[in-house]
Amino acid sequence: MGSTRNVTQKLIESHLVDGEMNPGAEIGLKIDQTLTQDATGTMVMLELEAMGLDKAKTDLSCQYVDHNLLQTDFKNPDDHVFLKSAADRFGIWYSRPGNGVSHPVHTEHFAIPGKTMAGSDSHTPASGCMGMLALGAGGLDVAFSIAGEPMYLKMPKVLGVKLTGKMPDWVSAKDVVLEMLRRYDVKGARGYVIEYYGPGLKELDTMDRHVIANMGTEMGATSTVFPSDEEVRRFMKQNNREDEWIELKADDGAEYDKDEEIVLDDIVPMIALPSSPGNVVPVSEVEGREIYQSYIGSSANPGYRDFWIASEIVKNRRVHEDVSFDVNPTSRQIIENMVKNGAMLYLVQSGARIHQAGCNGCIGMGQAPATGRNSLRTVPRNFPSRSGTSEDCVYLCSPETAAASALTGKITDPRNLEDLFGLTYPEYHEPEDYIINKEMLIAPSENGEEKELVKGPNISTMPDFDKISDFNVPVLLKMGDDISTDEILKAGAEVLPYRSNIPEISKFSFTVVDDTFYDRAMEAKEEHGGHIVVAGSNYAQGSSREHAAIAPRYLGQKAVIAKNYARIGWQNLANFGIAPLEFTDESDYDAIDKGDLIRIENLREQLKSGDTVQVKNETKDTELTVKHTLSGRQLEALLAGSVINLYKEQN
Amino acid sequence: MGSTRNVTQKLIESHLVDGEMNPGAEIGLKIDQTLTQDATGTMVMLELEAMGLDKAKTDLSCQYVDHNLLQTDFKNPDDHVFLKSAADRFGIWYSRPGNGVSHPVHTEHFAIPGKTMAGSDSHTPASGCMGMLALGAGGLDVAFSIAGEPMYLKMPKVLGVKLTGKMPDWVSAKDVVLEMLRRYDVKGARGYVIEYYGPGLKELDTMDRHVIANMGTEMGATSTVFPSDEEVRRFMKQNNREDEWIELKADDGAEYDKDEEIVLDDIVPMIALPSSPGNVVPVSEVEGREIYQSYIGSSANPGYRDFWIASEIVKNRRVHEDVSFDVNPTSRQIIENMVKNGAMLYLVQSGARIHQAGCNGCIGMGQAPATGRNSLRTVPRNFPSRSGTSEDCVYLCSPETAAASALTGKITDPRNLEDLFGLTYPEYHEPEDYIINKEMLIAPSENGEEKELVKGPNISTMPDFDKISDFNVPVLLKMGDDISTDEILKAGAEVLPYRSNIPEISKFSFTVVDDTFYDRAMEAKEEHGGHIVVAGSNYAQGSSREHAAIAPRYLGQKAVIAKNYARIGWQNLANFGIAPLEFTDESDYDAIDKGDLIRIENLREQLKSGDTVQVKNETKDTELTVKHTLSGRQLEALLAGSVINLYKEQN
Repeated sequence: MGSTRNVTQKLIESHLVDGEMNPGAEIGLKIDQTLTQDATGTMVMLELEAMGLDKAKTDLSCQYVDHNLLQTDFKNPDDHVFLKSAADRFGIWYSRPGNGVSHPVHTEHFAIPGKTMAGSDSHTPASGCMGMLALGAGGLDVAFSIAGEPMYLKMPKVLGVKLTGKMPDWVSAKDVVLEMLRRYDVKGARGYVIEYYGPGLKELDTMDRHVIANMGTEMGATSTVFPSDEEVRRFMKQNNREDEWIELKADDGAEYDKDEEIVLDDIVPMIALPSSPGNVVPVSEVEGREIYQSYIGSSANPGYRDFWIASEIVKNRRVHEDVSFDVNPTSRQIIENMVKNGAMLYLVQSGARIHQAGCNGCIGMGQAPATGRNSLRTVPRNFPSRSGTSEDCVYLCSPETAAASALTGKITDPRNLEDLFGLTYPEYHEPEDYIINKEMLIAPSENGEEKELVKGPNISTMPDFDKISDFNVPVLLKMGDDISTDEILKAGAEVLPYRSNIPEISKFSFTVVDDTFYDRAMEAKEEHGGHIVVAGSNYAQGSSREHAAIAPRYLGQKAVIAKNYARIGWQNLANFGIAPLEFTDESDYDAIDKGDLIRIENLREQLKSGDTVQVKNETKDTELTVKHTLSGRQLEALLAGSVINLYKEQN
Repeated sequence: MGSTRNVTQKLIESHLVDGEMNPGAEIGLKIDQTLTQDATGTMVMLELEAMGLDKAKTDLSCQYVDHNLLQTDFKNPDDHVFLKSAADRFGIWYSRPGNGVSHPVHTEHFAIPGKTMAGSDSHTPASGCMGMLALGAGGLDVAFSIAGEPMYLKMPKVLGVKLTGKMPDWVSAKDVVLEMLRRYDVKGARGYVIEYYGPGLKELDTMDRHVIANMGTEMGATSTVFPSDEEVRRFMKQNNREDEWIELKADDGAEYDKDEEIVLDDIVPMIALPSSPGNVVPVSEVEGREIYQSYIGSSANPGYRDFWIASEIVKNRRVHEDVSFDVNPTSRQIIENMVKNGAMLYLVQSGARIHQAGCNGCIGMGQAPATGRNSLRTVPRNFPSRSGTSEDCVYLCSPETAAASALTGKITDPRNLEDLFGLTYPEYHEPEDYIINKEMLIAPSENGEEKELVKGPNISTMPDFDKISDFNVPVLLKMGDDISTDEILKAGAEVLPYRSNIPEISKFSFTVVDDTFYDRAMEAKEEHGGHIVVAGSNYAQGSSREHAAIAPRYLGQKAVIAKNYARIGWQNLANFGIAPLEFTDESDYDAIDKGDLIRIENLREQLKSGDTVQVKNETKDTELTVKHTLSGRQLEALLAGSVINLYKEQN
């Protein structure tokens, strides 16, 4: 690396507390802010309780309630009450239910150029729109960030995207990021931070950049970063925070590990077809398909402008009688400005169904489309069934395309609105006297350590886990390759409500693979003190949910022996004290069968002294050698019984 | 009855097509309008299909979508698509999802003084606020009303309530009807229509009267009626319908079967405690209890004024940080006026969570309170668990009390707002240029008979039922007294989504009593052609749900032999072709056991020729005589196999 720096490198360099800035090498970063939401935050708070944390050590942490606002029974509202009490206990801000989606609210009121953030939500990089390094992470990683520990990750490469030219009428930020997805698909930016720069930036205001930063996640990027320029200053001034603004730009001549260019003049309205964000084509290619739903909102089109442009399109018109036109304002502040400036009236008059500010249908909490019908959404993802309807047909597009299609009842290129309705592209001007509302953000009290956590009947304390030790236990399952966290512990409406209740959620462990698992695990725990499972390659792939380690551990799982592991699932096992062992020779997979008794002696000594472990198959009276690839830090956590135990030993 | 008439008697007299106006005697009424909602309407539409109806024969029928708007999977939106297609097919208006709660929308746009209405919702009497006789009924009754058949009911008595005096500050219509509930509790008006009159009427506008008419249902009243006066004319003029107004008042000297008086000056803010609408005390008696939720909306406080007064109370203030302030606008039209006139801005700024127009939390579809926490609601009912939270603590009150309590976080008598915040009671003036919006009400097309019903995978056709005939079948259950429709076919989130799918919902028949029932019923149907059940007294009490007859019938149930029946359950059995037989001597109950084979020969002839039926117990080789108490109309339906078959024979 030379002496010039791009924005990403500056952010990393200024926060580096461990490691070297060589792409691929592990680095540790100081984390200034954290963001948690309700779906992941309850577990983070239980982890902080288990760690015995006194007070958050970040500059600022905020707990949002945005994912599950439906409240069909006591569990959601009990979670809200718990999160409020926990935020106060641990010195964390609390954003009340209905105050909005974490990412835009954080960007409006808390994000600061030049700072780092960890968030237990994959779209956390959205705040990269204002020169911040914002990283999505698992719940425990964020708990450790709150406790002041560094965040460890592989030093990313930087993909520099130069923006040039002028944005055409009827085209907006969503079309730009969909064009990126057309080029890079859903894996093309893995290992990279995407950094945008160039003269085309002036075409994008801060919330437009938020759209683009948000959906970098869909390309697999580690994060997305924009510079902090005069536009960011304007945005922060609007939000009464100009004093927190700093300029942060790439040095002249800064270089990138990979170069890309987007000529804005060439962008046309784009759309991602069912059921992948990478399945992108120009809208014009699929015009005319009938739709059931048009959906505006989410962290992937959160700005006031996005709702305003939709309102201008439907103003004094009526949405098609077969279309459910769902409007999900992203924050209370945006609702207020929509109400004040007329956008809300035009939307409602046209037929919109207005929902409280939150994630809502974007994460399948309501607003599911009808069977076999097309739904156009401005949300970031359209994975199968995410809408709540199995075999759904969800398309991703801009607010312009969604609003145009709501009027016609068919997928419509917004450029055709001129012919259809004589509508010229409305020119956006920031409203004067823009309302700022921080009223529903509650600051933690000074004496938080005196406060009690308020736990409803569905919220349990994090279980204690013993240090790991020798065992002689049965193999409860022998599985094949590519076992996902959905098979280890499924998601869905039946299971999700128990995410703050390990004893309850553990009953669903491996039910997809074998619905006798829970009973057999309890038996083996009673009789043998635990059990293990055996698997093929890429074990624990998929979602990052840490419950896929915590729940089996709660049932007595001592180890997994697999051909190899998916990265996050592997880390979660070590974090929670399940030894993630690997066959040294993949053919050894055949040497263990379901039901075999497996003994490991001197386990702690073996782990400490090298990267192999001797295993005895008592049933077959054979021995084999397995290995592990744990780092020193991970090994310490495993030996302590969990990374939480380790933290308690060290603090 | 003399020559003078009260309003109720005028409405009945002008629609009488069968019977005499003697209280308690059966009368048949011509029905001018109908109202159905989505929770009951899907079955009504399937019944119309089964009846082979060509086109609605009412003056006007409207299908609303207001109860279940959550759309957590495909079933809700599929129901919406189905209802729209069915409304068009049968010549019925369709009110789109999010357009609002049936009762206020109907009152705003369709209700007409001097007319009758049947609605498949217990709060249908709300439209009695404008001189209409509006009757709640079961789904099949409403299907028959749509088909032009008379509605049969017992001639009600009339409870005349004279209103005098002037309403004090901080007191509104909800307090008046809560005072009525304090006096009459939840059964005190059974067999009556409640008719309000007197000089105090001028204190109540049409939507205030809607509040009072709506909650007459909570006292068990057949309906509630107000006169149609100049205020109703003003209301209809505001809704561009002055041409449909007629005056309708009681004759001078008109008498009532029972007399009551309310002196408005004496009314204070009232509140119904958990968990009955009849459990009413003055707010001042329970001041200071901490609350989790304050909830404004529902058909029991639907007027623009109700939201406006709440907005004036919270204007430029912030709701307490522990309170979820949920605002459920009752119609799209009211949202528009709230947005235009500032009420919406004040509510949102204070911290309100704004929901789409609909029933929502009032019927437990979202917005459930946290465990053990108090919820203040302006809704009509607070039966246990109706909120979605078991062991809930729901209070019923006025918008004034709810808004005042939202600010303080405790139950607060709104009269104390003067001391607390220096607030004087805001004087309400109807806004100028009130917005009228009928855009989301879709008129049926001219050529509806050419349209197809659109049925998602969860919507089945109504099964065909054969004419009843002789049988020799086993007794599958022998039950005790007071078996409720919840035991015959339970409600709840697991079962309700199948209400448009008889084959699926039939699998839940009698699961509460015996979870082998379904399998045994299918076996008996295969082997013996059907089965019967035996029960004690008051069989099929509770909810009016007709599925408790349709589902067992679908599984092959031929008859019930019981000591006696609850009225609606008994009628439903006859309507769907299950013979509701009674022991002539209650001790005969001991002569039949579970598993016995029961034979009836010449069943049709026996039913036609008298009110007793000879039954042979083949297993015990004994005989007994049972009876029935069916009317001629009911007997014809039973013989035809169902009232739907009878309709088809006669049309």
